[in-house]
Amino acid sequence: MKALVYHGPGKKSLDNCPKPELKSPTDAIVRVTKTTICGTDLHILKGDVATCDPGRILGHEGVGVIDAVGSAVTTFKVGDHVLISCITSCGKCEFCRKQMFSHCTTGGWILGNKIDGTQADYVRIPYAETSLYPIPANVDEEALVMLSDILPTGFECGVLNGKVQPGSSVAIIGSGPIGLAALLTAQFYSPAQIIMVDLDDNRLEVSTGFGATATVNSRDGTAVEQIMKLTDGRGVDTAIEAVGIPATFELCEKIVAAGGTIANIGVHGTKADLHLESLWDRNMTITTRLVDTASTPMLMKVLASKKLDAKLLITHHFKLEDVINAYEAFEHAATSGALKVIISTQ
Amino acid sequence: MKALVYHGPGKKSLDNCPKPELKSPTDAIVRVTKTTICGTDLHILKGDVATCDPGRILGHEGVGVIDAVGSAVTTFKVGDHVLISCITSCGKCEFCRKQMFSHCTTGGWILGNKIDGTQADYVRIPYAETSLYPIPANVDEEALVMLSDILPTGFECGVLNGKVQPGSSVAIIGSGPIGLAALLTAQFYSPAQIIMVDLDDNRLEVSTGFGATATVNSRDGTAVEQIMKLTDGRGVDTAIEAVGIPATFELCEKIVAAGGTIANIGVHGTKADLHLESLWDRNMTITTRLVDTASTPMLMKVLASKKLDAKLLITHHFKLEDVINAYEAFEHAATSGALKVIISTQ
Amino acid sequence: MKALVYHGPGKKSLDNCPKPELKSPTDAIVRVTKTTICGTDLHILKGDVATCDPGRILGHEGVGVIDAVGSAVTTFKVGDHVLISCITSCGKCEFCRKQMFSHCTTGGWILGNKIDGTQADYVRIPYAETSLYPIPANVDEEALVMLSDILPTGFECGVLNGKVQPGSSVAIIGSGPIGLAALLTAQFYSPAQIIMVDLDDNRLEVSTGFGATATVNSRDGTAVEQIMKLTDGRGVDTAIEAVGIPATFELCEKIVAAGGTIANIGVHGTKADLHLESLWDRNMTITTRLVDTASTPMLMKVLASKKLDAKLLITHHFKLEDVINAYEAFEHAATSGALKVIISTQ
Amino acid sequence: MKALVYHGPGKKSLDNCPKPELKSPTDAIVRVTKTTICGTDLHILKGDVATCDPGRILGHEGVGVIDAVGSAVTTFKVGDHVLISCITSCGKCEFCRKQMFSHCTTGGWILGNKIDGTQADYVRIPYAETSLYPIPANVDEEALVMLSDILPTGFECGVLNGKVQPGSSVAIIGSGPIGLAALLTAQFYSPAQIIMVDLDDNRLEVSTGFGATATVNSRDGTAVEQIMKLTDGRGVDTAIEAVGIPATFELCEKIVAAGGTIANIGVHGTKADLHLESLWDRNMTITTRLVDTASTPMLMKVLASKKLDAKLLITHHFKLEDVINAYEAFEHAATSGALKVIISTQ
Repeated sequence: MKALVYHGPGKKSLDNCPKPELKSPTDAIVRVTKTTICGTDLHILKGDVATCDPGRILGHEGVGVIDAVGSAVTTFKVGDHVLISCITSCGKCEFCRKQMFSHCTTGGWILGNKIDGTQADYVRIPYAETSLYPIPANVDEEALVMLSDILPTGFECGVLNGKVQPGSSVAIIGSGPIGLAALLTAQFYSPAQIIMVDLDDNRLEVSTGFGATATVNSRDGTAVEQIMKLTDGRGVDTAIEAVGIPATFELCEKIVAAGGTIANIGVHGTKADLHLESLWDRNMTITTRLVDTASTPMLMKVLASKKLDAKLLITHHFKLEDVINAYEAFEHAATSGALKVIISTQ
Repeated sequence: MKALVYHGPGKKSLDNCPKPELKSPTDAIVRVTKTTICGTDLHILKGDVATCDPGRILGHEGVGVIDAVGSAVTTFKVGDHVLISCITSCGKCEFCRKQMFSHCTTGGWILGNKIDGTQADYVRIPYAETSLYPIPANVDEEALVMLSDILPTGFECGVLNGKVQPGSSVAIIGSGPIGLAALLTAQFYSPAQIIMVDLDDNRLEVSTGFGATATVNSRDGTAVEQIMKLTDGRGVDTAIEAVGIPATFELCEKIVAAGGTIANIGVHGTKADLHLESLWDRNMTITTRLVDTASTPMLMKVLASKKLDAKLLITHHFKLEDVINAYEAFEHAATSGALKVIISTQ
Repeated sequence: MKALVYHGPGKKSLDNCPKPELKSPTDAIVRVTKTTICGTDLHILKGDVATCDPGRILGHEGVGVIDAVGSAVTTFKVGDHVLISCITSCGKCEFCRKQMFSHCTTGGWILGNKIDGTQADYVRIPYAETSLYPIPANVDEEALVMLSDILPTGFECGVLNGKVQPGSSVAIIGSGPIGLAALLTAQFYSPAQIIMVDLDDNRLEVSTGFGATATVNSRDGTAVEQIMKLTDGRGVDTAIEAVGIPATFELCEKIVAAGGTIANIGVHGTKADLHLESLWDRNMTITTRLVDTASTPMLMKVLASKKLDAKLLITHHFKLEDVINAYEAFEHAATSGALKVIISTQ
Repeated sequence: MKALVYHGPGKKSLDNCPKPELKSPTDAIVRVTKTTICGTDLHILKGDVATCDPGRILGHEGVGVIDAVGSAVTTFKVGDHVLISCITSCGKCEFCRKQMFSHCTTGGWILGNKIDGTQADYVRIPYAETSLYPIPANVDEEALVMLSDILPTGFECGVLNGKVQPGSSVAIIGSGPIGLAALLTAQFYSPAQIIMVDLDDNRLEVSTGFGATATVNSRDGTAVEQIMKLTDGRGVDTAIEAVGIPATFELCEKIVAAGGTIANIGVHGTKADLHLESLWDRNMTITTRLVDTASTPMLMKVLASKKLDAKLLITHHFKLEDVINAYEAFEHAATSGALKVIISTQ
C-alpha cells in the first residue's frame, strides 16, 4: 500500500509499505478513505517529537471502513464506516475509566507517533472498540475528519476547560486551525464576546467569518489595551492560548479577568513566566490538557444536527498519491491560505 | 481607646486613638473582645503593602460585640455577639452577587489595610450585615477567631480550589499556620494521603499531630523523589502552595499528578517559572484566590458540630496592652513555637 | 396614579391610587415605563394565591426610571434606567448569600403579591440595590421586560436545572409563553434536539419558528411513542415540564432517558404520581425551582450581544389605561394568539 | 463445585454444580474466597425479580482469586487477588464510556440474576478487566466484600447523589445495612448532622455507634416534627431514602429543606405521591440511581487509608456449606441482629 513515511528530521516520502496486520484480539484494520495533516506532523518532521522514530507512517486523523477485526472485537464488523480518534484508549486503565483517555497507560497519542498512522491506505487501530466511532448515516465524511483531533482539541482544551458560558467574554490567542476550532465550538455556549488575536490580518478576517465578534492584531503591542477596552476594563472570562509560545501565554495572564480562566491548547517547547505577584489574588485558573476525545460522541451529535459547520475548516483537497503537495500547502499556510487539507485515498 | 498603629516600615506602637464612629447607614461599630495577628500584618510592617498608609490601625480578624449600628442595619442590634470577617462585602456588586466577596468593588480586604482594623478596643465595620456573622450559642470565642481569616483561607484557596476528594492524595508545601489550616480543613473530605512539606522538623512534627499522614523535609533536595515514592510514582492529586516563593511553587509543578491541581495560597512577590514544556499535556489545573470567606457559615457549622478543632492553631495568649509582645512572639515563631496568638482586650 | 387593582376573586379594575412612598433606607421608587401580565396574575384573579389580599396592585415585571431612592441606596440615583426583577432580594440573608434569591427571608416573590406591584405608574421596590438592574445602553426596553420573569424562569428552572448540553436532546411539555422561554434559552447550549409538546397545533407551529427541531401534538395519546421514536428509543436527556398538571409531569417520567433530568417549571396545585417502581434504577434527577433571577445579569449580556431575540415573545401592545383589554387578550390566548403583552404607561 | 441455587419462589438449595468455563476472550473465572448475601437475593427468593430464572446460582458480591482468563485479558493473570463488582461493565458502550456502568448495554446487574453468581466455589465474570478490581496489599478481605455492592450503593446513590457537604445536615430514612452504609460514607464529607430514622430502637442504637448525631424513631408519627426541631425548622439539606416504600419517600418530601436533595436508594415496587403542590417552588432535587460502582477505586483507597471501618457492617460468619443458615440469619435480622454475613468457601 501507499503511505507517507517519516525518515528523520526534514525527510519524508510517499512509500510502498506492507499492509498492516492484526496483532491483538482487540485490534482492527481500517481502510482509510480520508485523512488530513496536523501541525503535530510538522513538529515530527522538524525532529521535535522524540517518541517518533524514522520509518514511521505519519497521521492520526481520518475516516475509513473496517477491513478486519480481532477475535475480541464484537461491536464492529468488516464494512462498518468509522471515525478514527487521534487518541487510542484501552477503556480499562485507571485513566480511561475516568474519561482521561489521553493518559491511557498503553494508548494515548500513539498513532503516527509510536505506531504507524493514517496517512496510508490502511492503518491498524489498537483497542478498536474504544478508539473508533461508528459514523451515523447522512453525516459528511470530510466534516467528520475534523472530529479526529482538531475539533475535540479546540473544544476540550479550550472551550470546556475554559468554562465558556452564555454571556461570557472569550479571547482566543492564535487564529490558526486550532484557534478557529476553538472559535467554532465556543459558540456552542453562546458567549457574548469572542475576540480573536493574531499577527495576520488575513487570518483575523477569516475568523470574523467563523463568528468572532471582534479581532485584534497584536503586532503593534497594544493587544492588552485593545482587549481591556473591549471588555470595559475587566478583561476576559476565558483566555484561550492557541499558539504555544511564552509571549502568547503571558498575554493571557494580562487579559484574564478576576475569576477567569486561561485555557492552554498550545504545545509548548519552553517555560513561560507566571506572574504570581499579580495573579495570586485574582481567583483565576490555568488549565492544560492533551485532548482526550471524550467529547467525540457529543460532537458527532452536534454535527448531525447541523449546528456546527466543520467544513469551514477545510480549504484544500488532495489525493494520497499527491500527499507531498498537501504537506507543501499546509506548511506554507501564509501563502496558500491553507487551514485543513483533505487527503483522499481514491 | 487603645490600638496597635502602623507608623511606616518597621514602626508600630500601642497608641491612644479616638473611638471610631458610624459613617454610613450600613456601618456597625464593634467592641472587639478577641483578635489576632496575621502574616499579612508582618508584610505591612515590612513596608510591602502599598495600600496601607502610616497611621493605620492594623488587624483584620476578631470577634466582638455590636456597640452601634447605622440606620439601614436591621439584622444586627447592639449587644449581638459577632464574628468579624477579614473580607468586607457590600453584598450588591457584581462580585458579591456571585460570592466572590474578595473582589467586592468597594470592599474586599480593606480592614487594617485601607481602613482601621481590629487590633483595638473598637472597630468600624462597613457593610456590617454582609461582613459580620452572628455567633451561635456554645461556640468557643477563641476558636471563632480562627474563622476570620486563616481557616477560610486554607479551606477556600487550598482545599476547595484544590478539589480535595475522598481517597485522594494531597501535598501541602509549608507547615506554617496557613499550611496547617489547609491540613485541618482538607480532612473534611477524607483524602487518603496528606503529605506535609517543610524545612523545619519541629513544624513537621506539629503537622503529624494535626493529621498529616506523612512528612517530608525538603532541605536535602529530595522532596520530589520522596513524594513520588509515597504516591507510587503518580504524584499528588492536589498540591497546595502555602509559602509564596518561586521554589515552592515550582516544586508543586514537579509533584502534581496528571489530572491534578496546584492550588496556590501563598502571597507571591515575584514571578515563578511555569514549565509548560512539561505541563502542557498533563491535564492539570492551577488556581489562585484571595479568600472570599464565602465558606464562613459552613465553617461555623462544622465548628459547632465539633468536627473541627480550630483551637489547635492557638499557641499563645496576650492582652491588648501587651500586643507588642504578641508581635514579638509571632514574628519569631521559630524560637517561640507560635502559630496563632490570641489577643484579648480585657 | 393609575394602577390595576385586585379586588378579590374574579374582580379587578383600573383605579386611581396614591403614589407609593419610600418606607425604608434601602427602598427605591420607580416610575414604570413598561410592564406586562404573567400567568400568575391570572392565578391571583382566580383566588388561587392565598398570600395576595384584595386591594393589591398587581404585576411583578417591568422596566422604568428611578424616581426616588432611600438614604442607604448608593448604586442608583434618580433618573437611572432600570429593570425590575420579579424577585425581591435583601442580599444579606442565608439564601441571598448563596444566590437563592427566591427564598430571601424578607423578600422573594412579594411584588404584586404581598406588596403593591408594577401594573401602575409607580412602584416601590424594597432592597432596590439588589432587586433592580441597571439597563445597558442600546438595549431595547420591550425586550428587557421579558427579563423580569419569563426568560429567567424558563432558563433557570428549565434549562439550567435541566442541564441542557451541546448535542443533548430536550423535550419541552407545553408551548405557552413559559415553554417558549425555555425553548429560546435552551438554544444557548446548542442541544441537538428540542421537541416541543402541546395540544394546540398553532402553538406548535409558533415553536418551530422559535427553533424547535420537532413538534408533537399529545392529543391522540401517542406522545410517548413519538418522542421515543425521535430519540431512537432512548428518551430525552432533559424533559422540561412547563404546564403544571399531573398528566404532563407524568409524561415527563415516561420520556426521560436513563441518566436524564426532569426539570419542573409548572406551578402545580395538586400531587402527581411518581413511578418509583420504574424510575428507582434509572439514574435520573427531578428538579423544582422558583426562579431566583440570579441569571439576569447574564441574560442582559446575551441580549445585548444579539444572541437572544426576546421580542419574539411579544405579540400585543396596550396602554396602561387600556390594561383591562390587555388582560382580556392575555386570558384568551387561544383566540387572541397572545404570548406576552406589553403595557406602556405613556 | 458447591453453589446456592434459586429454584423458583421460596425455593433454594446448596447444590453440586459444574465449575463454570470461559465463554468469551474477555471472561475470567474467579475462585471465590468470600461472599455475602444482599437484600436483593431475598427479593429474588420472593419471586420479585422477573429477570432471574430458576436454576440460577445467586450472589453478586465477593472477593477471590483468578483461576483462568480469556485470550483478550491482559491486565489480570491467574493467581491475582480480586474484588468482584456487583455491576458488570463492558467498558466500551455509550453508558460505560460516561461511567454509568449500571446501564451497560450488555452488562449492568447481571451476576446472580441473568447469569450465575458468586455464592459458589467459582464464578465466571464477563468483561473481567472492567468488572474486577485488583486488591491492594494489606487490605482486609472481609472488609473488601463490603465494597462489591453495599458501600458503593450507599455512597453513590445516597451520599454522592445527595450532595452531602461539610457542615450540611443529613437524614437517612432506614437503619438497615444500606442505610448504615450511607451513614458510614456520608462521614467522608463531614456533615454537621446525620439523623437516622427507623422504627427499630436497636437499629437506631447501632447507628449511634456508626456515627449518627441524632436518632428518630418514626413509629409514633412525630418524625417530621422531631427532624424539624433538630434542624431549627429548616429541614435537612439531604434526605436519603433507604427503605423503598411510599411512606418513607413521602417522609423525605416533608423534611427536605428549600434547596435540598432527596436521594433515593430504596428499591421501590410501587409509585409514591409526589406533592408538587408544596414542592414546585422549593428549589429541590430528587435523584434515583442503580449503583454504578464507579466509586470502587476511591473506596479502596479510603479503606486502605484506614479512614473507613467497613467491617462494622459484618455481624456473622458462615462457611459456604452452611449457606442455608446464613440466609436464615440474614432473613431474620430483627431477631439475629444480622447486618452483613460473611460466607467463606473454605
